[in-house]
Amino acid sequence: MDELIIAGRSFKSRLMVGTGKFSSNTAMVAAMEGSGCEIVTVALRRVDIDNPGDSMLKHIDRDKYLLLPNTSGARDAEEAVRLARLARAAGCEPWVKLEVTPDPYYLLPDPIETLKAAQILVKEGFTVLPYINADPVLAKHLQEAGTATVMPLGAPIGTNKGVRTRDSIAIIIEQAIVPVVVDAGLGAPSHAAEAMEMGADAVLVNTALAVSPNPGQMGAAFKKGVEAGREAFLAGLGERRDKAEASSPLTGFLRD
Amino acid sequence: MDELIIAGRSFKSRLMVGTGKFSSNTAMVAAMEGSGCEIVTVALRRVDIDNPGDSMLKHIDRDKYLLLPNTSGARDAEEAVRLARLARAAGCEPWVKLEVTPDPYYLLPDPIETLKAAQILVKEGFTVLPYINADPVLAKHLQEAGTATVMPLGAPIGTNKGVRTRDSIAIIIEQAIVPVVVDAGLGAPSHAAEAMEMGADAVLVNTALAVSPNPGQMGAAFKKGVEAGREAFLAGLGERRDKAEASSPLTGFLRD
Amino acid sequence: MDELIIAGRSFKSRLMVGTGKFSSNTAMVAAMEGSGCEIVTVALRRVDIDNPGDSMLKHIDRDKYLLLPNTSGARDAEEAVRLARLARAAGCEPWVKLEVTPDPYYLLPDPIETLKAAQILVKEGFTVLPYINADPVLAKHLQEAGTATVMPLGAPIGTNKGVRTRDSIAIIIEQAIVPVVVDAGLGAPSHAAEAMEMGADAVLVNTALAVSPNPGQMGAAFKKGVEAGREAFLAGLGERRDKAEASSPLTGFLRD
Amino acid sequence: MDELIIAGRSFKSRLMVGTGKFSSNTAMVAAMEGSGCEIVTVALRRVDIDNPGDSMLKHIDRDKYLLLPNTSGARDAEEAVRLARLARAAGCEPWVKLEVTPDPYYLLPDPIETLKAAQILVKEGFTVLPYINADPVLAKHLQEAGTATVMPLGAPIGTNKGVRTRDSIAIIIEQAIVPVVVDAGLGAPSHAAEAMEMGADAVLVNTALAVSPNPGQMGAAFKKGVEAGREAFLAGLGERRDKAEASSPLTGFLRD
Repeated sequence: MDELIIAGRSFKSRLMVGTGKFSSNTAMVAAMEGSGCEIVTVALRRVDIDNPGDSMLKHIDRDKYLLLPNTSGARDAEEAVRLARLARAAGCEPWVKLEVTPDPYYLLPDPIETLKAAQILVKEGFTVLPYINADPVLAKHLQEAGTATVMPLGAPIGTNKGVRTRDSIAIIIEQAIVPVVVDAGLGAPSHAAEAMEMGADAVLVNTALAVSPNPGQMGAAFKKGVEAGREAFLAGLGERRDKAEASSPLTGFLRD
Repeated sequence: MDELIIAGRSFKSRLMVGTGKFSSNTAMVAAMEGSGCEIVTVALRRVDIDNPGDSMLKHIDRDKYLLLPNTSGARDAEEAVRLARLARAAGCEPWVKLEVTPDPYYLLPDPIETLKAAQILVKEGFTVLPYINADPVLAKHLQEAGTATVMPLGAPIGTNKGVRTRDSIAIIIEQAIVPVVVDAGLGAPSHAAEAMEMGADAVLVNTALAVSPNPGQMGAAFKKGVEAGREAFLAGLGERRDKAEASSPLTGFLRD
Repeated sequence: MDELIIAGRSFKSRLMVGTGKFSSNTAMVAAMEGSGCEIVTVALRRVDIDNPGDSMLKHIDRDKYLLLPNTSGARDAEEAVRLARLARAAGCEPWVKLEVTPDPYYLLPDPIETLKAAQILVKEGFTVLPYINADPVLAKHLQEAGTATVMPLGAPIGTNKGVRTRDSIAIIIEQAIVPVVVDAGLGAPSHAAEAMEMGADAVLVNTALAVSPNPGQMGAAFKKGVEAGREAFLAGLGERRDKAEASSPLTGFLRD
Repeated sequence: MDELIIAGRSFKSRLMVGTGKFSSNTAMVAAMEGSGCEIVTVALRRVDIDNPGDSMLKHIDRDKYLLLPNTSGARDAEEAVRLARLARAAGCEPWVKLEVTPDPYYLLPDPIETLKAAQILVKEGFTVLPYINADPVLAKHLQEAGTATVMPLGAPIGTNKGVRTRDSIAIIIEQAIVPVVVDAGLGAPSHAAEAMEMGADAVLVNTALAVSPNPGQMGAAFKKGVEAGREAFLAGLGERRDKAEASSPLTGFLRD
């Protein structure tokens, strides 16, 4: 069976969902349900991780979804590490989506601080899934540091531009020894399918679901897009060609 | 229910499949089955339409699939009209996918001869589905002539390049009064999804299935891609943005 | 010497300029001067071609620029032919840029009416330069009808999107027996350079110059862009590659 | 006058040229001459910097060109720093193009080691021009460390794919406090023009010149491409639009 395995844990779904920016918890749950996801990320600084009655957390069925806390909002390694430790102290599993984004306008990840935080957190026993620019050399450093995945961005977060970093993502996939999860910028199921067709192991989507007038249906659409791309990758895609090639040969009775 | 209606006939599937270039009839049937298609195109000059024992035709279950004869190989209106009439005379339903491609290298459609043939065939009572370049003005002429769809190409046939004619397809869709079926050039499920997300009513795929080592699985992948794109279109997609927008707001305890 | 030859007449410049939408005649002349163009198109319905004192025409030095009247605004072949005849009757040279654009929103050319008008005008002795969609088969029909060039669009007029019809333009160029002039949609010198690098014989620019705060400087920028692209085409461009190739070989004393 | 100023030194040309991979020193000099460049990069490990009779160096007129030694081939900060020091010890000016590329296949730069080397070299008084992935956060770190430029890649070196990192380059330019030089992947003058139109301060080209059958002419073509893009940027480019806008207004006597 075609399962996604991260840090020894296996998942049927290759679509992860973020929980930011939804208009309501109902909308968020609808998107999660529709998407068939098994991993949901939650911004640590937005929830009261200690409090089982936290308004967002109580909407997420922990038997069904792996809650992946993220360090969104951390501006350097120190802040990210602090957030991760707090989550573990509160009883979360030691998995963390590592985000270090010093720039408040584009929220792009910091390669230096991300690597630094990853090295610390791996040593402390965390399963680390770092969000990064589509930088193949950085991806290698992180894998050497022991991260469980690499999560290169397709385009700046929230832009809906799709896999604009295609050349670099292709190299990251070719060289990867852990799952590659394309994160950020995927605004439509076709974008998710494209990432999967390239051989990505999974994708993470948030904004596209949160801003849709119908998050449940959009979640279901992304589910199909991800599966479509994965299945096409496994079945084997054709090459791009410059010359046309007829679907039907040109001989035949018309010319006889 | 979200059905595709062509000339008063309704279809659940929005994926049409061509039957050229498959390595075997078994591979062809596998692709058809996997894709869930309800319409399959067959090149008139490749089959013996009079002969119920024709080796290809007998593999296609006529209760399950609408056989849409195409005029592939016709170099001008006269040849195309002749082929369509032969098919009807042989007992086919009077539906025809109109292809007029004088150029043997790129197999691009001829706007002049296609319109001429369409005008004749519509008058003769045919349901005409013309294959065209992504030309909005030609698409209008054909609709005024009474065609049942327009079928603009995404990229030259067999190139697997996807929706390279995006700007023109968008205009055709915006102005269409009949279903728009994107045909040719779609090499991956992400391409099919993209066309559907733009608001196309259906797509036609052939080469991508025929050249896949696993046509059945690729058919299934395209099925999901088409459905993903359609559902996303119905759910409402977000705009592309130039500035990032955080999935998680930037306030929070880290800064407190 | 590398000259552009149209209908037996030779030109040093491969950049044609349109005269619409300028804020003033001074701005228009500045753009023409900056661009080094030798051919300028003028919309017949905007000028009083009989009147040597017409406010726009008197700004164009007829010894320096070939005035190429265009049939902009014509919605069918009949209107286009009528405009062309009026221009000749008024003493213009029998050159005409043929534009037939029934759609008032996107101003896309009509393949059917354009071919019809071209056939009539060629027979009447006009030198015909037709504006067309990037349709290789139509381009062939027009050349067979005796047009002096074909002028496929890069993108819908006024959009500044560049050579979005790249695949089709490449085929048109490959098959052409007359000069190919890429017209419409070129919004920046890089777009003009790209068209020339592909092997186009010339380009026509209007909106990009007319909307610039500095039309003279923008004209000069396009001049260099066109020359850059032409020279690179002649010098021979490299292929796109998927693997990196070091500019500097990897042996050397570092590894010794 | 529109000059490029790097570390207080001013240049008229905004095109830098690399000296790798040329078929002969004659070809290299022809490209330099044609390009009008004032800065040429030389791989330190390929030349005998101590030896005034080195076969390559003696072809480069030091009164005309600033020789910018690069650390090409260095796999980590230590190797890069060592190379830079050797160059200075041999009497070179203390300018260095910093390249740290541990991966021998794609030659992509290492963000971690590049920053580390830059910090050391700046402290030692070098004028540092670092080659980097198109990573806006890394670019900021380098500028804070005191580098004289940042040199993000357009596409992996030697691929001729152009400005594929457009989104990130735009952010780097927007946030830069030092000149931004787009380096690597520029395979045609249109690519160089595009980078300049976006507001880049300069570009560096090597492979495209070295592999051309006519390096002198290709150098001249790039010179014009760079100037075209720069002038268009200064003159002010128009926005991309989705609707067509007629170059000629639609009123006129045809409709009267």
